[in-house]
Amino acid sequence: MNKIPSNIMALASSTSNKRETVCIFGTGDFGRALGHKLIQCGYPVVFGSRSTQTSNLIPKDAEVLSHAEAAQKAAIIIIAIQRQHYNFLAPLAENLHGKVLVDISNNLKINQYPESNAEYLAQMVPGAKIVKAFNTVSAWALQSGTLDASRQVFVCGNDMEAKQMVMDIVRALGLMPLDQGSLLAAQEIENYPLRLFPMWKFPILLSLGLTTFFFFYCLIRDVIYPYVYENKDFSFFIAISIPNRICPILALILLALVYLPGVLAAIIQLYRGTKYRRFPDWLDKWMLCRKQLGLVALAFASLHVVYTLVIPIRSFVRWRIISHTVSEALNNKTEPLDTTNAWLSDSYLALGILGFFLFVLLGITSLPSVSNNVNWREFRFVQSKLGYLTLVLCTAHTLVYGGKWFLSPSSYRWYLPNAYMLSLIIPCIVLVVKFVLIFPCLDKPLTQIRQGWERNPQYSE
Amino acid sequence: MNKIPSNIMALASSTSNKRETVCIFGTGDFGRALGHKLIQCGYPVVFGSRSTQTSNLIPKDAEVLSHAEAAQKAAIIIIAIQRQHYNFLAPLAENLHGKVLVDISNNLKINQYPESNAEYLAQMVPGAKIVKAFNTVSAWALQSGTLDASRQVFVCGNDMEAKQMVMDIVRALGLMPLDQGSLLAAQEIENYPLRLFPMWKFPILLSLGLTTFFFFYCLIRDVIYPYVYENKDFSFFIAISIPNRICPILALILLALVYLPGVLAAIIQLYRGTKYRRFPDWLDKWMLCRKQLGLVALAFASLHVVYTLVIPIRSFVRWRIISHTVSEALNNKTEPLDTTNAWLSDSYLALGILGFFLFVLLGITSLPSVSNNVNWREFRFVQSKLGYLTLVLCTAHTLVYGGKWFLSPSSYRWYLPNAYMLSLIIPCIVLVVKFVLIFPCLDKPLTQIRQGWERNPQYSE
Amino acid sequence: MNKIPSNIMALASSTSNKRETVCIFGTGDFGRALGHKLIQCGYPVVFGSRSTQTSNLIPKDAEVLSHAEAAQKAAIIIIAIQRQHYNFLAPLAENLHGKVLVDISNNLKINQYPESNAEYLAQMVPGAKIVKAFNTVSAWALQSGTLDASRQVFVCGNDMEAKQMVMDIVRALGLMPLDQGSLLAAQEIENYPLRLFPMWKFPILLSLGLTTFFFFYCLIRDVIYPYVYENKDFSFFIAISIPNRICPILALILLALVYLPGVLAAIIQLYRGTKYRRFPDWLDKWMLCRKQLGLVALAFASLHVVYTLVIPIRSFVRWRIISHTVSEALNNKTEPLDTTNAWLSDSYLALGILGFFLFVLLGITSLPSVSNNVNWREFRFVQSKLGYLTLVLCTAHTLVYGGKWFLSPSSYRWYLPNAYMLSLIIPCIVLVVKFVLIFPCLDKPLTQIRQGWERNPQYSE
Repeated sequence: MNKIPSNIMALASSTSNKRETVCIFGTGDFGRALGHKLIQCGYPVVFGSRSTQTSNLIPKDAEVLSHAEAAQKAAIIIIAIQRQHYNFLAPLAENLHGKVLVDISNNLKINQYPESNAEYLAQMVPGAKIVKAFNTVSAWALQSGTLDASRQVFVCGNDMEAKQMVMDIVRALGLMPLDQGSLLAAQEIENYPLRLFPMWKFPILLSLGLTTFFFFYCLIRDVIYPYVYENKDFSFFIAISIPNRICPILALILLALVYLPGVLAAIIQLYRGTKYRRFPDWLDKWMLCRKQLGLVALAFASLHVVYTLVIPIRSFVRWRIISHTVSEALNNKTEPLDTTNAWLSDSYLALGILGFFLFVLLGITSLPSVSNNVNWREFRFVQSKLGYLTLVLCTAHTLVYGGKWFLSPSSYRWYLPNAYMLSLIIPCIVLVVKFVLIFPCLDKPLTQIRQGWERNPQYSE
Repeated sequence: MNKIPSNIMALASSTSNKRETVCIFGTGDFGRALGHKLIQCGYPVVFGSRSTQTSNLIPKDAEVLSHAEAAQKAAIIIIAIQRQHYNFLAPLAENLHGKVLVDISNNLKINQYPESNAEYLAQMVPGAKIVKAFNTVSAWALQSGTLDASRQVFVCGNDMEAKQMVMDIVRALGLMPLDQGSLLAAQEIENYPLRLFPMWKFPILLSLGLTTFFFFYCLIRDVIYPYVYENKDFSFFIAISIPNRICPILALILLALVYLPGVLAAIIQLYRGTKYRRFPDWLDKWMLCRKQLGLVALAFASLHVVYTLVIPIRSFVRWRIISHTVSEALNNKTEPLDTTNAWLSDSYLALGILGFFLFVLLGITSLPSVSNNVNWREFRFVQSKLGYLTLVLCTAHTLVYGGKWFLSPSSYRWYLPNAYMLSLIIPCIVLVVKFVLIFPCLDKPLTQIRQGWERNPQYSE
Repeated sequence: MNKIPSNIMALASSTSNKRETVCIFGTGDFGRALGHKLIQCGYPVVFGSRSTQTSNLIPKDAEVLSHAEAAQKAAIIIIAIQRQHYNFLAPLAENLHGKVLVDISNNLKINQYPESNAEYLAQMVPGAKIVKAFNTVSAWALQSGTLDASRQVFVCGNDMEAKQMVMDIVRALGLMPLDQGSLLAAQEIENYPLRLFPMWKFPILLSLGLTTFFFFYCLIRDVIYPYVYENKDFSFFIAISIPNRICPILALILLALVYLPGVLAAIIQLYRGTKYRRFPDWLDKWMLCRKQLGLVALAFASLHVVYTLVIPIRSFVRWRIISHTVSEALNNKTEPLDTTNAWLSDSYLALGILGFFLFVLLGITSLPSVSNNVNWREFRFVQSKLGYLTLVLCTAHTLVYGGKWFLSPSSYRWYLPNAYMLSLIIPCIVLVVKFVLIFPCLDKPLTQIRQGWERNPQYSE
């Protein structure tokens, strides 16, 4: 039960004493941890070991027997042994006939062996019922009881009854079993704990690369240029001003990169006149990490918002305003309100606020629990309609912000345009192409193609 | 397995080759997409079609046979045909006897037919085991592999074993089956993909209406009035100043509307002296969309926060402060610190911050994954106690903000009071009535009524 | 189906009429509410009652019979009676033989009785199949249809088939059954609805205590001291300035307290040379509420951010800046830009922004739906690596903020150091110890110990 803290758990289960014996082969760390936990939850535990000397590491209440003897004591045997040593089970095949063997092993690399450890175990002991489980739980977490992270235990196996028995044990330990179907799922389950954000690698590397590029670009324009030409030390721009240039640029580029593959796919489909040919591999991969790209873009947008809101607190900005005011006062002049300027300033802020607001909405709907509660029609509405609206608002925000400086020569230092101009290239391309694709003369054939129509049927696979 | 990206998925499952044959009736777009995916996951696929010519659209590895022949090859038959053509299955009844028929059809409108498609199929082929599944998955998503949205597949059927077989296939395709019970659930499952945020319609329409009203109200007071009387062009207020008036007003009104129906229900129950009579329909509907009303209110509150924080960056505000400072300097006077003013300004800001903070907490607890992890007692504590505290803080924020201007004649332009005064009406009514309802003389009978007591038992249905 | 609003639900299920009869023992409030709902969903309902007079509170379509007669009409009997009256079921044992009895009772206190109500019922009626269910649903919610909160219904029982029957009814009522295994889980299920954020008690009490302490500490330094020595009234600091001192202090201290127990545990393990001895109880409890501590810290950090961003809007701050500017103008002097100051100001802001950004990331990954989607390796990476980075950034933020005042005598009022200096003690200790623990001479034995190695095997339990 994933919502009852384990301390209450322990209390509750300690009242029971009719659990059936569980056998554990192997007295390594995970075997002992599982044994401890099982005893704590009221299960009699028997260890099967090569040397039957009771080590003082093994829980006192547990018996230690030879493998063959231990196997006879229980219907369920947990194999807490590494895959390399599974062959020792072959001679025990007779003792293990009809038993439920629980494979809890993990590998060191993804897809390390051609078949999963559980399937390998099934080959070794053909007469047993193999169930894969517990491999996603750490020994440390089991023992310390601090199961903050996932309490999910993936379970798979070909024998329904055996699976049910193991799932009951999983539940009794305060964990949540998830039936993953037959033993074919074992390989996925074994690969699962080895992942480290595989889908995030590309978006993060890409944004690191872009960040580095734009950092040096802005450094040259905003720090080195004034130092060389005006001998002013603006090195402190590195802390806030330059990050606050990089963040919106990256947010905008990455957001555009979320929608670019969809536009490319539409062009490819229109050109080929069919949807039945695979996209190139790079496009497929790109499409699969759009969600991650979008979330990284949202992170940069959020940083941009905080960096911007912090502006009036910055000591440099206060100094600039105060010295500007003082000089005005000393010159005895008061500037009148420039309405155009007020319009520009307010509207780029308003566009940015609305764009960010929609962006956060997109982020919230991509939370697993929220996106699981919407259907395809709703998901497509949010991610496509609202997504494009976000891109339009953010691009307009940047355009209005920079508006008046586009053609001003003072904004080209060493022939380098302002960095935000570079950031506008991809979003503008995406929006223009998307706008063209909306025209009926292109939208109609595209819709037909996506519904299965083909221009040249011989093209199909 | 919903947490393993589909590319790893495909790799893993391609190692298997002992899947059992699946038959698909119909070679339309969804049938072919499902066939492709099944083959990719290692299932032998047979298509049943009127014309047995192998179209090149059909995956190469699949056989195409007549319906009767195809049905014999597999225990599971997926019916990828529209409901209107189900009657052609009647003559095949003998061939389909004992088979598992998977109904994957969808309708165009909610509750289009008196009985669900799956139940209609069951009437057509009485000897078969009907399972409803796959209707929430899109062909496009299946084919492109970009299952970003929900991987949930609702499954229902009267035969447990048949349902289990279909759920195993669903899992093998990398999707997550959700058992919805007997075939009676089919109608709900068929209605599910047709929804487009039905619960959000009323809150969004209401807030659009209120937004329009308050926009023109503020436009008249803040832009047209100064233009007419002082000939000042404040049209740029449309970008930020006016939205920043509308947002807090709507947030406060909508938040009060979340708690108004509860108060009304209490009054009705007290008046009737029983809880066993149904509330009027409008009140029932209102109560059902309180969560959505609250979230829309939170959205407006968030916008208000950002609009407010952006104030010091606005070019107009900077100009106003600078010109004020310059005029003070030129007049050679320095204003002393007005402590009352500092108190008022700081306390309405503090009230607003705390109110918004609690509001965000309420929003977080309404995330599906969080609210699933709290019990009723905790949920009621958060949504009722913290909710009313939020309303009190936000109302106090508005009262303190406007405090000194309530009676000032200068705040009535063309006899129109300031917009925030209008926004206080509903919250104040709700809070006063709630406060009255807390008195023991009303709270005690109300609690009794809610526990089932009745003043006039003849009232009950 | 948890995502279909109950009004559609009712519509859909009203089409069915082949449900099997359900019997309810007891005509109290919850029994009647469940009866109403069951009839609404198409189940024929029979009430078993001592007095068979049809009260007009009981739904019209339901029959009311004696217990024995009612029991014969249905295979499933819902026991809507309090535990104290269960003994009246003993004489009915014969009538109840083989029936499915659903225990829906709740207690008033956690672990009120030695055995759960469901197990007590099983002792009373040994021949029946007991299933625990429905105790987490409120009568009020069932009747009003406003199931905003959790639709989860925990179900447990020893008989698989009986459990399945009850779960089908749960689903038909629009709720989501969760199989919790055998009847041993009943006690936990009965304790569940009585909880009121048990894991949050310690973090919230601790932070309340610290808040009170620091409030009076800051009150003395920032309000009373200037009042006594300079006769200045800064009482309005209570609204924003003092909260904005307390919030970052608490955020930093609580964040450090999240990582302190881990460091203490490592020291204890190194000292003992084994991981097989239990930690002291206080450390265990502390480790179990780290997530809650972290989230409270995040709440304080968020408040700090908003309080800080609101600074330039505060009337006091505007007055201070304006009067400073005016005095500069009147004195005819312009301060040059202090680059060191600009560096310090910008870098503590930047450190704070990055620290807060990572903190929010940590908060998002602790949402149940997100943390369920990461494996242990990913969870540990985020919570440990990113967590320590957050602590480093936030500590550095505070150090740079206070930097130049550490040794300034003016910051010691009545010998009291600035409050933020106190807040640095625990984080610095944690970071220094953690830094020491990273050295290979300590890290290597620690890793060995955590993998099961022991220095003095006789120490083990």
